[in-house]
Amino acid sequence: MTGTFIAGDWGTTRLRLALCRDGEVIDRAEGLGVAQTQDPAAAFAAATAGWGEHGKVPAILCGMVGSTLGWVETPYLDCPVDVDRLAAALVRFDSDGRQIAIAPGLACENMLGAPDVMRGEETQILGAVALSPDRDVGRHLFCLPGTHNKWALVDAGRVERFHTTLTGELFACLRDHSVLGRDTAGTTPGVDDAFALGLDRAFDPRRPALGHLLFEARSRRLRDGMAADQALSFLSGLTIGADVAGMLDLLPAPGPVIVVGAPVLCKGYAAALAHAGVDAISVDGDAAALAGIGALAAAAGLLGE
Amino acid sequence: MTGTFIAGDWGTTRLRLALCRDGEVIDRAEGLGVAQTQDPAAAFAAATAGWGEHGKVPAILCGMVGSTLGWVETPYLDCPVDVDRLAAALVRFDSDGRQIAIAPGLACENMLGAPDVMRGEETQILGAVALSPDRDVGRHLFCLPGTHNKWALVDAGRVERFHTTLTGELFACLRDHSVLGRDTAGTTPGVDDAFALGLDRAFDPRRPALGHLLFEARSRRLRDGMAADQALSFLSGLTIGADVAGMLDLLPAPGPVIVVGAPVLCKGYAAALAHAGVDAISVDGDAAALAGIGALAAAAGLLGE
Repeated sequence: MTGTFIAGDWGTTRLRLALCRDGEVIDRAEGLGVAQTQDPAAAFAAATAGWGEHGKVPAILCGMVGSTLGWVETPYLDCPVDVDRLAAALVRFDSDGRQIAIAPGLACENMLGAPDVMRGEETQILGAVALSPDRDVGRHLFCLPGTHNKWALVDAGRVERFHTTLTGELFACLRDHSVLGRDTAGTTPGVDDAFALGLDRAFDPRRPALGHLLFEARSRRLRDGMAADQALSFLSGLTIGADVAGMLDLLPAPGPVIVVGAPVLCKGYAAALAHAGVDAISVDGDAAALAGIGALAAAAGLLGE
Repeated sequence: MTGTFIAGDWGTTRLRLALCRDGEVIDRAEGLGVAQTQDPAAAFAAATAGWGEHGKVPAILCGMVGSTLGWVETPYLDCPVDVDRLAAALVRFDSDGRQIAIAPGLACENMLGAPDVMRGEETQILGAVALSPDRDVGRHLFCLPGTHNKWALVDAGRVERFHTTLTGELFACLRDHSVLGRDTAGTTPGVDDAFALGLDRAFDPRRPALGHLLFEARSRRLRDGMAADQALSFLSGLTIGADVAGMLDLLPAPGPVIVVGAPVLCKGYAAALAHAGVDAISVDGDAAALAGIGALAAAAGLLGE
């Protein structure tokens, strides 16, 4: 066996694969999400059909592929969890002569004492740790913006505890299905003046309830002449601002926050953190996912002797 | 002219009319919402076609009928506003030999200093004042649950200031379009134990951001065995609880809160207020709307000599 393997992030709506050799991505492929297929083995075979020349190299997969919707259910692993513990809990099986390993998700009691879960982000967090110059050292708050934003407290490379906030899905629901998004189709929220106004409102020292601020994205259009695209940026600033203000009120950041995700989301979160006087270190989410799967593969001995 | 008139609440999706005589409703009719017709005069004529025997009695209308979408646009009236000021600002015109009066909406700087607007609820508030035994007396916080919940501070029968919260629409968006509502179709939220748990979470003394609590409506299903209908009640408790907690933090209630609306919504808000140790007086929203239009009609001299 060589250092060649397939790294996969298999979510509800998309399968994203990278063929990796000696730490480099040599090819990429996509396939159906777990919610879009009844036959994960066939979907995986179809997505990797072009890679026959590389032989049956092992594949390490994370995300919803380990859920009840997925290929093989992998039980949640209770925090604290580091890369060695996650690697030891990989669910491994053989499919069509290929070794498959699926990472379990994580569970914990979150920062408000409620049950919480993640699937896929654990791999990005461990990847961001692996990519950082001071890996395994220090205590940091991580932020992984997305549909379900994850905040995680990581100490010496170990995920201690995390907290899911509904920011991305909440924004999308309001944009697409409420009066706040009326006539905004085709506009894209930016990290602009209207976004900054949304942050200002969310960081009001009285800490208003988010529901008490949201209607401003409508009333400012009716009464202050705010344009549709500005209203969407304002709404984005409100929702991200309320997320960041709420988390920092709950748990002051022990140093810079590591923001892992798509660059446009990282930019908005970094602006909100800056509003609170907290530095952000942005890490590309795709790079973190790959690094995380690589670290898991190495720790699990999947890369051969 | 006699004491007979038509009272109408004409919203975006529905026209509701009551034929009133000597303070009693003698018949009711419904018609198209303002967003469903390009010809309000024809829609009104169709809805009142069965009342020809009563002659062309005057009609007093409130709601979105006065918006840019409506029949005749009525400018917002700036607070403070009492029944006499609202009556004096009715926009009156003749349609097919019938006298029509449309109530303007209200505008103000809300309790967080932002521009805010209402259309229709002003009539319910003034109606609830007219129905109360101590009308025109005292200072009260009013709450009008609905798609866009309105909180209003009313002093001596005058609407001083109000604040729109997105509670109803936020709940509906999350139920119908987010992961929180998955598999809940056909279930109805109640004011039950799961609702009470949602209130407890929202009233957490740390006052967590709503977005930090919402995912519990999912994670408690995955990890605590919460059932789908319970999750919906829990979500309702979270959103109503956050609304009430946020308002009382901003503005302690000067006595019992007057909750005006549909009985099922009043019940949920009364439970949330009780959680904060605040009494609620519930007033049926339909009765309040009728009383408000009656008070407006009387104050405007629309009921004849």
